[in-house]
Amino acid sequence: MDLTEALHRAEQLDAEDPLARVRERFSLPDGLVYLDGNSLGALGSSVPAAVGDAVQRQWGQSLVASWNTHDWWDAPRRVGARIARLVGAADDEVVVADSTSVNLFKALVAAARLRPGRATMVIEAGNFPADLYIADSVADLLGLTVRRVDPLDIGSSLDDDVCVVSLSHVDYRTGRAYDMAAITRAVHDAGALAVWDLAHSAGALVVELDDCGVDFAVGCGYKYLNGGPGAPAYAMAARRHHATMRSPLPGWTGHARPFAMEGTYEPAPGIDAMRCGTPPMLSLLALESALGAFDGLTMPQVRARSLSLTTLFLDLAEEHLVAHGFEVVTPRRDAERGSQVSLNHPDAYGVVQALAARGVVADFRHPDIVRLGFAPLYVRHTDVVTAVRHLVEVVEAGEDRDEQWVVRATVT
Amino acid sequence: MDLTEALHRAEQLDAEDPLARVRERFSLPDGLVYLDGNSLGALGSSVPAAVGDAVQRQWGQSLVASWNTHDWWDAPRRVGARIARLVGAADDEVVVADSTSVNLFKALVAAARLRPGRATMVIEAGNFPADLYIADSVADLLGLTVRRVDPLDIGSSLDDDVCVVSLSHVDYRTGRAYDMAAITRAVHDAGALAVWDLAHSAGALVVELDDCGVDFAVGCGYKYLNGGPGAPAYAMAARRHHATMRSPLPGWTGHARPFAMEGTYEPAPGIDAMRCGTPPMLSLLALESALGAFDGLTMPQVRARSLSLTTLFLDLAEEHLVAHGFEVVTPRRDAERGSQVSLNHPDAYGVVQALAARGVVADFRHPDIVRLGFAPLYVRHTDVVTAVRHLVEVVEAGEDRDEQWVVRATVT
Repeated sequence: MDLTEALHRAEQLDAEDPLARVRERFSLPDGLVYLDGNSLGALGSSVPAAVGDAVQRQWGQSLVASWNTHDWWDAPRRVGARIARLVGAADDEVVVADSTSVNLFKALVAAARLRPGRATMVIEAGNFPADLYIADSVADLLGLTVRRVDPLDIGSSLDDDVCVVSLSHVDYRTGRAYDMAAITRAVHDAGALAVWDLAHSAGALVVELDDCGVDFAVGCGYKYLNGGPGAPAYAMAARRHHATMRSPLPGWTGHARPFAMEGTYEPAPGIDAMRCGTPPMLSLLALESALGAFDGLTMPQVRARSLSLTTLFLDLAEEHLVAHGFEVVTPRRDAERGSQVSLNHPDAYGVVQALAARGVVADFRHPDIVRLGFAPLYVRHTDVVTAVRHLVEVVEAGEDRDEQWVVRATVT
Repeated sequence: MDLTEALHRAEQLDAEDPLARVRERFSLPDGLVYLDGNSLGALGSSVPAAVGDAVQRQWGQSLVASWNTHDWWDAPRRVGARIARLVGAADDEVVVADSTSVNLFKALVAAARLRPGRATMVIEAGNFPADLYIADSVADLLGLTVRRVDPLDIGSSLDDDVCVVSLSHVDYRTGRAYDMAAITRAVHDAGALAVWDLAHSAGALVVELDDCGVDFAVGCGYKYLNGGPGAPAYAMAARRHHATMRSPLPGWTGHARPFAMEGTYEPAPGIDAMRCGTPPMLSLLALESALGAFDGLTMPQVRARSLSLTTLFLDLAEEHLVAHGFEVVTPRRDAERGSQVSLNHPDAYGVVQALAARGVVADFRHPDIVRLGFAPLYVRHTDVVTAVRHLVEVVEAGEDRDEQWVVRATVT
């Protein structure tokens, strides 16, 4: 299928797509093909007014009374419950708080403490670097050993010394999705607890935390959830752990009686114990408004659209990009794929820069990955074809090897 | 001086006040006397447009490129440098990150690790509760003992087993200010490190972290800095510790080469090592804009205005409030006072509620404290007199004992 035919086919797919109009819930710059929603999600149309209201009417007019009158106090739980519905958890199992790394720290310490006498944490070797750093720090503080493994070999790494296994649901570089149900089962069979990072799956894949028996999960608000730059993250803990889990970051908002200002910490019942300090309310209310983009959608619908986009891209990549020096890194099987496609290319940095100059935003991951995210709520099938066309043209014109990119690459 | 005379005197003080017009840098509701800026600072006039720009133009139009084009990446350092100038630190000693509690966790662990072989942390017994909880958690993780002391007796609690001393510069309940220079000197004489919480002093008092030789400090963005609800907090580390301090929360933004996505953590040089995850940018840019309210002011000027306000309040309290059952908790000596005045009253909760119904916002601290904050950038001398008048009238009319407050007090 040449690219002109592909464009017609894409237009047809968009026309038939039951979710096509969901794009109207976002404000995207005209003419831009935005394939970096897995780094920073697009701005929801409702968000500017919601943030303006939070600033001017709530903060500006009601001031400190807003903690009650505008229900700021409950926002971490209220927004947590909305996220819970997107990731297959119960409303009372998710709370919004802190950053993903800080939440992972809490979850790893809490999980390890629930398995005393076991001294090994198993971590996905290719996990997002911060997840590795946090795991190393937790191990250092608790006197544990970290075993870094390939998730595909997880079985052979599990023994009765393992307290916690920590993985990302979707690999941030390759876009590979792991089998949460099977891995969590294996982890439990070994008597350990499973902690999942949903940064690259929540909001794009069908995530079934409770059905998979996941113990703890963390995730990020600003990728497929579109919560805005550095939006607060979330922490999930299965209800069965609520009574016994203990966070290493006991803050006043996670106290059983936060306003009694007691000198000794007593965790709030339930998921509130994963709260710590006062949440950044403007960013949190932006996230809340952004989540409205999911209203009326089911995650299987969202996932179907994501797969339709990535399948089209993969089909075209095989036909048009492999011959231009690109190698597809992302698995071809639907069940093994997140919502992104990653391509290896020797001039990956230059390719991404040249694409951006043509109005196609993807991102570069060191040292040689071009990462294209297909955020299922607003990327169109026609965007897929446009991206492929520009990738071909960039390489054919040698724009990826333009010396301005080479210079910049050395300083990044 | 009766309250009519006092009002004339206050009008005169406001008229002569070189900082009187600074109030115009804020948007405050008409007719409200806002004495809770030590809980949530007022909205700066520049903030709505700054946040609107961050949402619509930066996030909405430039999307992920904003990390470079709008310099989001450097915002934690850029805003940190502005705060540094308000607290007597060098620009490269302060970074904005996380919440106060999370920063205290980093600072306490980092400080304790710099004094290996010493196993006691000394903590102010009346510290903000979350500071106590965090200290207990740090002690638990590092195998230390916590000694809770009265800061006025700090000398007798220091010995060669003490690694870290952690105090608040101003007590959140009583408004007492501690002598940072003398206490830090005593801590150093004992071979320990000093960690100060500036939540209730930064932006209102003259804080001289470097002149006092402070090792680490943390503070909050949403009180006298007016950064908005839950604004990100900040962490200060003296330059002499930069090369050796080690944060227990190593995130990707605090890595020496954050974009190389390396599997092993290597701290960024300098204060950047206190960064962790991606910062909540909308809240952070609100804080940045809010700090503009300090432009052109010196902290001695700000402090002089604060003292003028609290002195007037204390004078009137002695004359008009003590007879109505109020007891002044806050020290009378200027050097021992923050920017708030706290009153004990048996019906403190009812007093605060009745005041609010009259348009005077103060706050209640369990079990019997009425806390009145005199944010020096926007509270007027006339507000002081108005507050005293309402306090008198509330008690004379028995409004503090209205049964609606009694009912609510039991459920709070």
